Amino acid sequence: VPLSRTVRCTCITISNKFVHPKALEKLEIIPASQSCPRVEIIATMKKNAEKRCLDPESKAIKNLLKAVSKERSKKSP
Amino acid sequence: VPLSRTVRCTCITISNKFVHPKALEKLEIIPASQSCPRVEIIATMKKNAEKRCLDPESKAIKNLLKAVSKERSKKSP
Repeated sequence: VPLSRTVRCTCITISNKFVHPKALEKLEIIPASQSCPRVEIIATMKKNAEKRCLDPESKAIKNLLKAVSKERSKKSP
Repeated sequence: VPLSRTVRCTCITISNKFVHPKALEKLEIIPASQSCPRVEIIATMKKNAEKRCLDPESKAIKNLLKAVSKERSKKSP
């Protein structure tokens, strides 16, 4: 019975604040698993390495993912 | 002159292997910065916590990001 399983999500509160891609040190995406039933997205900020949990379903996170993957060097082969 | 700057990218080689969302422990996205001129995506696998660098421009990674963000519990408010 899965009810007795210990839930160990990393995020307790989820921030709705906008995160600027430039302010971001890194972004961690943790898929749903046996230890936590939901996807967790943890943003580590450059400034004081503060960690913030973000809402995976928010439009802001989708834009952030897009911005981060675009923000690359434009070296062509 | 930025030429003398030390480049400290995390990834040396980049894997083109397909990563199944279910096999993924977490995914780290590190935006381009002064220490590394390119976006880095590091997948940590559940099995033996192996780390793999993935190509941010590959279609596989885009699908993976999509899959991971969709793979959530369907709790409605």
